[in-house]
Amino acid sequence: MSTRVGRYTILLDTHPTITGYAGVVGKKEGEGPLGNCFDAIYDDDTLGEASWEKSESTLQREAVIRALDKANRSPAEVDIILAGDLLNQCIGTTYGIRELNIPFLGLFGACSTMALSLSVGGMITEAKLAGTVVAATSSHFCSAERQFRYPLEYGGQRPPSAQWTVTGAGAAVINADAPDPGKPHIAAVTLGRIVDMGVRDANNMGAAMAPCAASTIEDFLKDTKTQPGDYDAIITGDLGMIGAELLLELLQKRGIDLSPVHQDCGTLIFDLNTQGVEAGGSGCGCSGSVICSYFMQKLERRELSNILFAGTGALMSPTASQQGESIPGICHLVQLCMD
Amino acid sequence: MSTRVGRYTILLDTHPTITGYAGVVGKKEGEGPLGNCFDAIYDDDTLGEASWEKSESTLQREAVIRALDKANRSPAEVDIILAGDLLNQCIGTTYGIRELNIPFLGLFGACSTMALSLSVGGMITEAKLAGTVVAATSSHFCSAERQFRYPLEYGGQRPPSAQWTVTGAGAAVINADAPDPGKPHIAAVTLGRIVDMGVRDANNMGAAMAPCAASTIEDFLKDTKTQPGDYDAIITGDLGMIGAELLLELLQKRGIDLSPVHQDCGTLIFDLNTQGVEAGGSGCGCSGSVICSYFMQKLERRELSNILFAGTGALMSPTASQQGESIPGICHLVQLCMD
Repeated sequence: MSTRVGRYTILLDTHPTITGYAGVVGKKEGEGPLGNCFDAIYDDDTLGEASWEKSESTLQREAVIRALDKANRSPAEVDIILAGDLLNQCIGTTYGIRELNIPFLGLFGACSTMALSLSVGGMITEAKLAGTVVAATSSHFCSAERQFRYPLEYGGQRPPSAQWTVTGAGAAVINADAPDPGKPHIAAVTLGRIVDMGVRDANNMGAAMAPCAASTIEDFLKDTKTQPGDYDAIITGDLGMIGAELLLELLQKRGIDLSPVHQDCGTLIFDLNTQGVEAGGSGCGCSGSVICSYFMQKLERRELSNILFAGTGALMSPTASQQGESIPGICHLVQLCMD
Repeated sequence: MSTRVGRYTILLDTHPTITGYAGVVGKKEGEGPLGNCFDAIYDDDTLGEASWEKSESTLQREAVIRALDKANRSPAEVDIILAGDLLNQCIGTTYGIRELNIPFLGLFGACSTMALSLSVGGMITEAKLAGTVVAATSSHFCSAERQFRYPLEYGGQRPPSAQWTVTGAGAAVINADAPDPGKPHIAAVTLGRIVDMGVRDANNMGAAMAPCAASTIEDFLKDTKTQPGDYDAIITGDLGMIGAELLLELLQKRGIDLSPVHQDCGTLIFDLNTQGVEAGGSGCGCSGSVICSYFMQKLERRELSNILFAGTGALMSPTASQQGESIPGICHLVQLCMD
C-alpha cells in the first residue's frame, strides 16, 4: 500500500510496473540526437490525415497501440486510459483514442501531461483500482503553431527564447501486480501546485515554468529527505535552454545543486545548434516521446536505475495572454526505478 | 478497500464522505426552479471581473472556497484539488484555483467533469492516496458562447435543440476516514468509454451525448446486477429535453426502463417554458451546481438516499466540427448514498 511522506509525496510501495512504452515522432525529431531511440518516425508529418489535428490524433493512437503491443496486451484488456493534450478541448486525445473503447480518464496538465498521466496511472494501479492502465499524450508542431501562434503559412518570426513544439507522442502501459525486474516501475509521485511568478511572455515558456519545476523538485527532495546526488538523473519536461538555466539558479539559491544530474527533454530531443529550434523542444509530446523511449530504454538497459521525471506545463491560453494575464506553471514528478 | 465488480465498476467500500459542497450560479440560474438551493447567486454575472473568462475563474474559486468553509477545512488542509472546465486550456480552472496553493490534478471531461472529478476524487480517497480532496468545475454562459458559438453582441439565432450554457460552478470536499451518517458518501464509480454515433450537429448536444449515457448506465446496472428501480433517482448531467428522451428510448430498446427514476440537471435548472433556454441547460457548471446543491441537500435531508449521477460530456471542439468530425460523447457515473 502507498505511504504518504512529507506533505506532497506518495510512495508507491507495490511498484506499479511499466510493461510497455512507446515514443513516436515526426521527421524533424527523427533527425535529432535521439533519432535512433523512437519506435516510429513519420517522415510525412500529416500521417496521411486531412488536417493537422487529425494527424496529432493518429500520432497519439499510434503510440498507444505500439505501447500495448510491446506490453503484449490488447485495448480490451485495459481498464483505464489516462490521457490529454493541449489542443482546445483535448481533441488530439479524444479523437485519437475514440475507437479503442477503453474507459477514459481525461487529464489536463499542459506539457506536464505525460508526468501527470504516469502519476495518476501509478496511483490507481498501486491502489488496485485498476489492473492495467495506459498513460498517453501528444503534440504536433503544426496543430500547436496554428492554434497558439500564427498560421503556418505566415512564417512568424521566433525570438531566441521561443521553443519548438515537438511532433510526437508517448504512451506507457502500467500494471498492478506484475513485478518484473527487467522493467521500470513507478516508485513515487508528487503532484505539483500551480506557481505563477508573473512571467507574461508567451515566447518564453521556459522562464514561466522554471519556478514550478523548482517548487515540485524541492518538495520531493524535502519529503523524501534525499539529495539530487541520490538520483542518476533528474529530468525536466520541456524547460529548454533558458528555463533549465533558471531552474538551476532558483534551486541553487535554495541550497540545492541540481547541475550534476539535471537533464531536460526539450534540450535533448533537438540539436540546438543546427536544427533551428531556438531554446529547445516543447509540447506534451516532447517529454512524452523522450521519456517513453530514450529514458525508459536507458532504465531497461540499467544505464540508469533511479531517475526523477519532473514534467513541466504552462497553464496559459492565447485568450488569457491577450487579456494580459501572467502564465501559471505546474510540474508533476514521478520517480522511475529499476529493482 | 475497493472492489471491482463486472467489467467497469469500482465499489468504494470505505465510503469516502462528502463533508462539504457548494453550488454557485448566475442571475438567470438563480431565477430558475432551483433558485433557493444555491449557495450564492451572482446578480452581476461579471462577478466584478474585466473579462468573462476571469468571471468564470472567480465563480469556480467561490464554489471551492464555500465548499471548504462548509467542510470546515482550509485550502492548506487539502491534499489534491481535481478540477477542469471547457474553456480552451481549462483556464476557468487554472486561473480560478491558482492562488489556493493546492496540488492540482487537472481533468478534462467536458460537461462530465463534475462526475469525473467526484469519481477520481472518490477513488483516490478510497485508496488513502489522499485524506482530503476537492472536486470542482465551472462554466459561464458568456465565456462559452463566445468561444464555442458567436460573439455575444451578434445575437445568434438558436435552434430548438440548442442548450443554454449554465453560469455556475460546483465543488465538493471528499474525505477519507471520516464516516458521518449525516453526510452523503460515494459508494461506487464507473468511468465511461467514448461513444460516437456519428451525430455532427453542434446545436444538438443532447443527441450526441444520449448514447454515451445509455452505455455507462447500462454498464453500471449490469456490473452491479441492479435495476433502475433500486435507485431513488438516476440523474444525467445535461442531456436536455431532447437528449433525455433519446436516452429513455435507447435504454428501452435494451430492456431497461429508466423513466420512473430519470432526472436531468439540464432540464431541472431552468424553466424550459418561460426562460428561453430551448432544450435546457448545459455546460460543466450545469450538473456541477445542481449536484453540489439541490441533490446533495436532498441526500442530506434523506429525501433521497441512493442515487446515480451520470455526468455527460460532448468531446468536440469548434475546430473538429469545422473539419466535419462527428461528436464523441462520454459519461462518467458516481453512486451517491446516505448510510
